[in-house]
Amino acid sequence: MITPALHDSRFMRAARCEPTDTTPIWIMRQAGRYLPEYMSVRSQVTFLDLCKRPELAAEVTLTAREVLDVDAAILFADLLPILEPMGFHLEYQQGEGPVIHNPIIGADDIDRVRPVDRIEDLGYVFEAVRLIRSQLPADIPLLGFGGAPFTLASYAIEGGGSRNYAKTKTLMFGDEGAWKSLMERLVESLGKYLNAQIDAGCQAVQIFDSWAGCLAPADYRRYVMPYTKKLIDAIPDDVPVINFLTGNPALLPAQRDAGGQVIGLDWRVDLADAWETVGYDRAVQGNLDPMSLYADLDTLRARAKAVLDGAAGRPGHIFNLGHGVLPDFSPDKVKALVQMVHELGVRK
Amino acid sequence: MITPALHDSRFMRAARCEPTDTTPIWIMRQAGRYLPEYMSVRSQVTFLDLCKRPELAAEVTLTAREVLDVDAAILFADLLPILEPMGFHLEYQQGEGPVIHNPIIGADDIDRVRPVDRIEDLGYVFEAVRLIRSQLPADIPLLGFGGAPFTLASYAIEGGGSRNYAKTKTLMFGDEGAWKSLMERLVESLGKYLNAQIDAGCQAVQIFDSWAGCLAPADYRRYVMPYTKKLIDAIPDDVPVINFLTGNPALLPAQRDAGGQVIGLDWRVDLADAWETVGYDRAVQGNLDPMSLYADLDTLRARAKAVLDGAAGRPGHIFNLGHGVLPDFSPDKVKALVQMVHELGVRK
Repeated sequence: MITPALHDSRFMRAARCEPTDTTPIWIMRQAGRYLPEYMSVRSQVTFLDLCKRPELAAEVTLTAREVLDVDAAILFADLLPILEPMGFHLEYQQGEGPVIHNPIIGADDIDRVRPVDRIEDLGYVFEAVRLIRSQLPADIPLLGFGGAPFTLASYAIEGGGSRNYAKTKTLMFGDEGAWKSLMERLVESLGKYLNAQIDAGCQAVQIFDSWAGCLAPADYRRYVMPYTKKLIDAIPDDVPVINFLTGNPALLPAQRDAGGQVIGLDWRVDLADAWETVGYDRAVQGNLDPMSLYADLDTLRARAKAVLDGAAGRPGHIFNLGHGVLPDFSPDKVKALVQMVHELGVRK
Repeated sequence: MITPALHDSRFMRAARCEPTDTTPIWIMRQAGRYLPEYMSVRSQVTFLDLCKRPELAAEVTLTAREVLDVDAAILFADLLPILEPMGFHLEYQQGEGPVIHNPIIGADDIDRVRPVDRIEDLGYVFEAVRLIRSQLPADIPLLGFGGAPFTLASYAIEGGGSRNYAKTKTLMFGDEGAWKSLMERLVESLGKYLNAQIDAGCQAVQIFDSWAGCLAPADYRRYVMPYTKKLIDAIPDDVPVINFLTGNPALLPAQRDAGGQVIGLDWRVDLADAWETVGYDRAVQGNLDPMSLYADLDTLRARAKAVLDGAAGRPGHIFNLGHGVLPDFSPDKVKALVQMVHELGVRK
């Protein structure tokens, strides 16, 4: 259910390619370690505990939205906890990032991967959504999110970060049946997960294919696109899906074909060129190089303006960075960026 | 000086977009840790010593060429030693990769970066070239190589590997004058270095812009392309330059505009699409996903054939991986790949 105020919000209008008073903006990982308000909560608990305690997840979500004055809130959560009810033992090691202690080693391991049966096992996420929605301003949408099937499969196989995705590709190229079986289990679980976020109060969802950039276009089309498409097709049509992928602009035509009312771009591509490829009947999100935040304010403004110039005032542009905020970014610069976009994006 | 046998070799003909009996192939990092013949030499010395001892560098270069039966040899060397005579203290730490102990911290540091004055300081490289050339078969070209200015600047600033190139982009975006000064010093040094390799006996050179994929197209055109172009323009026209870049297919039009008779592609792009973008008056090199080497022989053959099908028998395709061989690749599979390409690439 969506209220008129949410339906007519900047973000939701832009997601439908409808005109807005100015360009909407939100920022990937806007509730993150660069924000002192986040750190003061995070210092009390582990990262996984923060994800699993709805009142804390709600607090960091709401505070970041408010101090930045962005046009959407995004649920504070992580891509990986969905793997726990699927049978993976997940740990966030200090300074090391996430580790899966029982990754998939061979095709035989796929059988032990359980599609999420009781979505209530992830109830802490939906409880956070309800808490956030109840406290957000009436005209600010709440975004849910999940990993794309490929990115989650990579984590499950590599057991953590990876440089070359060697194990993932070995399984993918070597045993297409096993690969399909794993991807199907992930799609089924992710569909339930995202729909439960929507039922709890999210107005849109973003799917993060953070690692798909390691793939050649033909491989993305064969091994990945059908599953991402199936996941996106499982979301109701009136809930915008932001289909975000990073690391390979040559995948853009296939990424578009996988679906999503909004195509999320990283900074490696020129926004004007990308939108032409995507087609003007879809919205695009992005795509300032995050490292622009290290520049002085004048340079930052010029670089933000270049992105807006690429969009050329066309309805359907949601401003964002091309990837997430880094921990050492200046909160004041991030706030300044939001103001700049709201000023520079005003429709004449 | 080039002999008729070298001039008419498969590699050199393909680099000029002339027909060949079959598709030429060489493999990035073909003399590397996956080869037992390499490891038996490498086990006696450090990596840097191997680079600096011409008789050993020649041995691993020649052996790899011979056991793989590839159509070109590539000088065994590394991208970074050129930084030593420019004033950087370079160390290869075991398992850690290269470290520069005195990286560029701020714009003030640029003044201490010296363009290479006496190219003889890198004489061990040219001596290796002479030794290799004297022992190579008469119809096998020897490739020299160097880093592209951006990739070397990144190393000099980051001090080693980097995830986000934050320091590099901070300087690049923040102080264009300092950036230009650094890039000019690198271009001058690299031009001398590559020309000295050619004078010593190389028939072609490859420029590795291994890290440029982190850049947006507009930033590549502004901060990188003029310097890469200047370097390529400094090479005599009759010596083919392979302009290789990895990590961002959206840079391809600008990479082409920077020059090079051969455009080196990574695996992220479809070869047929890429060649159309590059233009058929230039040769292309690539672009099998290296991870294909983990697949069984039938799958490997099908994947190699897909790359050849993308080239469609057009003159001017040099087969290669989209990036370098990894240490755990099977030497037999790499040898099998060379055979497959020679078989499948035969012109009817």
